[in-house]
Amino acid sequence: MTDIKPVSPFPRILLGPGPSNMPPEVVAALGAPIMGHMDPAFTAIMDNVRLMLGQVFQTRNALTIQLPGGGMAGMQAAFTNLIEPGDTVIIGMAGYFSGRMLSIAERLGARVIKVEAEWGTVIPPEAIEHVLRREKVKAIAIVHGETSTGVEQPVAEISKLAHRYGAYLIVDAVASLGGVNVPVDAWDIDICYGGSQKCLSAPPGVAPITINERALQAIRQRKTAVPSFYLDLTLLEKYWLGNPRAYHHTAPVPLVYGLHEALRLVLEEGLEARVARHRRLSQALVAGLEAMGLELFADPNHRLPSLTTVRIPAGVDDARVRKALLNEMNIEIGGGLGPVAGKIWRIGLMGYSCSKVNVLLVLSALETLLKREGYRVPGGAVLAAAAVLDNSGNH
Amino acid sequence: MTDIKPVSPFPRILLGPGPSNMPPEVVAALGAPIMGHMDPAFTAIMDNVRLMLGQVFQTRNALTIQLPGGGMAGMQAAFTNLIEPGDTVIIGMAGYFSGRMLSIAERLGARVIKVEAEWGTVIPPEAIEHVLRREKVKAIAIVHGETSTGVEQPVAEISKLAHRYGAYLIVDAVASLGGVNVPVDAWDIDICYGGSQKCLSAPPGVAPITINERALQAIRQRKTAVPSFYLDLTLLEKYWLGNPRAYHHTAPVPLVYGLHEALRLVLEEGLEARVARHRRLSQALVAGLEAMGLELFADPNHRLPSLTTVRIPAGVDDARVRKALLNEMNIEIGGGLGPVAGKIWRIGLMGYSCSKVNVLLVLSALETLLKREGYRVPGGAVLAAAAVLDNSGNH
Repeated sequence: MTDIKPVSPFPRILLGPGPSNMPPEVVAALGAPIMGHMDPAFTAIMDNVRLMLGQVFQTRNALTIQLPGGGMAGMQAAFTNLIEPGDTVIIGMAGYFSGRMLSIAERLGARVIKVEAEWGTVIPPEAIEHVLRREKVKAIAIVHGETSTGVEQPVAEISKLAHRYGAYLIVDAVASLGGVNVPVDAWDIDICYGGSQKCLSAPPGVAPITINERALQAIRQRKTAVPSFYLDLTLLEKYWLGNPRAYHHTAPVPLVYGLHEALRLVLEEGLEARVARHRRLSQALVAGLEAMGLELFADPNHRLPSLTTVRIPAGVDDARVRKALLNEMNIEIGGGLGPVAGKIWRIGLMGYSCSKVNVLLVLSALETLLKREGYRVPGGAVLAAAAVLDNSGNH
Repeated sequence: MTDIKPVSPFPRILLGPGPSNMPPEVVAALGAPIMGHMDPAFTAIMDNVRLMLGQVFQTRNALTIQLPGGGMAGMQAAFTNLIEPGDTVIIGMAGYFSGRMLSIAERLGARVIKVEAEWGTVIPPEAIEHVLRREKVKAIAIVHGETSTGVEQPVAEISKLAHRYGAYLIVDAVASLGGVNVPVDAWDIDICYGGSQKCLSAPPGVAPITINERALQAIRQRKTAVPSFYLDLTLLEKYWLGNPRAYHHTAPVPLVYGLHEALRLVLEEGLEARVARHRRLSQALVAGLEAMGLELFADPNHRLPSLTTVRIPAGVDDARVRKALLNEMNIEIGGGLGPVAGKIWRIGLMGYSCSKVNVLLVLSALETLLKREGYRVPGGAVLAAAAVLDNSGNH
């Protein structure tokens, strides 16, 4: 017996660092009839997920799959498979998620060299090269779009350095894949993982990942066993690509359906158009925030289109504003993490949540609540944003 | 651009080793509006999941949560958190999934002592005691309901031995939780994980797990760091129980909704009634299979109610029969794994799939197809099963 009532979630407008709202097609797919994880009709769906992920990652890598866990499982898998105890790893650190990379690498017994930059700025490639010149480095890891700072890191340049010095490159594209350009092959990224629930607007809980042949060879030639069975990429390869397929885990079937539909919609829109939409709408958001007199946080030359960070003005109560947004207006935005907790807000425009109407809505809501907080709102934020928008539909 | 069509899965009747079919309330919950993973309205749902999981596991353990990965993530998490390099672990081996425990434990640097029994039989507790008498053992691991053999292992007896000799007990209840009695506190299990997609009939992809205070102390006192960030139970504890909660991963929100509804339905039915239903309907299935002249595989004194294993008669083509079941009748049953591949079928009656009508259906379908294979079907299987069924509703 239980007196617990059925789940009845609020219809939030998700403008935080993720998850984003899901398109109706994705929502519908979640409720499609469940099939067994070895059913040929299901594995045919997996094949299509793999094909579409290849297009979204812009790669020809055969091992381009979805992990049975969220974005953090992607990070865990990348390190767990590639890194062995004693390996030297450079981690470009300028935000919260690179801190997690550090924790993961250290747990695996890696020797980590941190190349740090202030939160809100980019990692200088020359600082990485400085280390590469004197150390034998197995891998460099970097977060492409740092959700904690709203900065897009210079992956292409760092990749060139990595390969010049014979190091592998691990890239976290959780906050960028599907909304910001992540050309895995053109940038020569060895292992790249993304998030399902951000710019792809698929449900959270499954992480897209792609591994090139070079990295796969390194994994196959490890001296020690991969310490995780669950995330062993050579076993996952046998389930996704084997002939016959070898059972590894029971796939999270509804999430695979959801990812399938989300990817289909991404490709229907076109990757280029989608990236342009994220860029344009984030520019509109920035114009609106600046018209409000707010100061942006991230380096203006390296702003991540999918996530905009803005400083909370003096005298304004972070928690009170976000609570009012959530409770009165059903809008979620993100607060700051770690050293910038209470100091910045993080406004995501990701995937299906990245729409004209949401830009106007979040600006109006912030104007309203900042005024209530006693902040002197200049007004005109909406019109400033509208000036950047074009006339081509809701997106 | 893509010419890939929307997902349109077949409405399978799932009578294999899992996933099982989901009740309509669970399906509906999957499509409920998505919320952020730190939204108080969402974390309230997590709290209810935790409360209900406690009732289903029959435990007062505070750390009773759902992992962001499937049943194999449960197995991975149990070993990854409790076991350190050099620890001695006894694994009771009498099926496919205990083989996976072996792989996981070895990858973590454990010294594994296998206590083996033939597939289809139980692990003799005295064989375990034999080892405990001469070795200092950190933990014993056993699969309660082996999905590969259809045997229920004597967990209560092994638990007494484990604690008498100061070893921790890890129990895999993936195929039993919610359909077979798994009283975690009464049996004094230290770490127990279950499956969402079997007797609970929740979506696959989230593993219920419960850890008692004794095991948690051992984890807190590890000499080495838990090698996985993603499955570190002390971090998961801070997300599920922290005040304030500490962000650890983006929860697979739709799956949490689905698990919530599935657990609610389990408690609405009542655990005892549900266990009785699984027992009664599996007896009906067994009666039908035996009336067909088929030979059961598992030790008759230790049959797992949620999964029945039956030998494929000589001259009958395993693959052809299962293909016809799937393609002509939309019914999934399981084939054999490992050494019994091609030799047995595995028929699951789990959760929502465990219904009168499904018992009659699978028996009728098998009669039809066995006849087609040239097997001399005595007839009367349905009536033999019906004789075991009572008159109290579809279940």
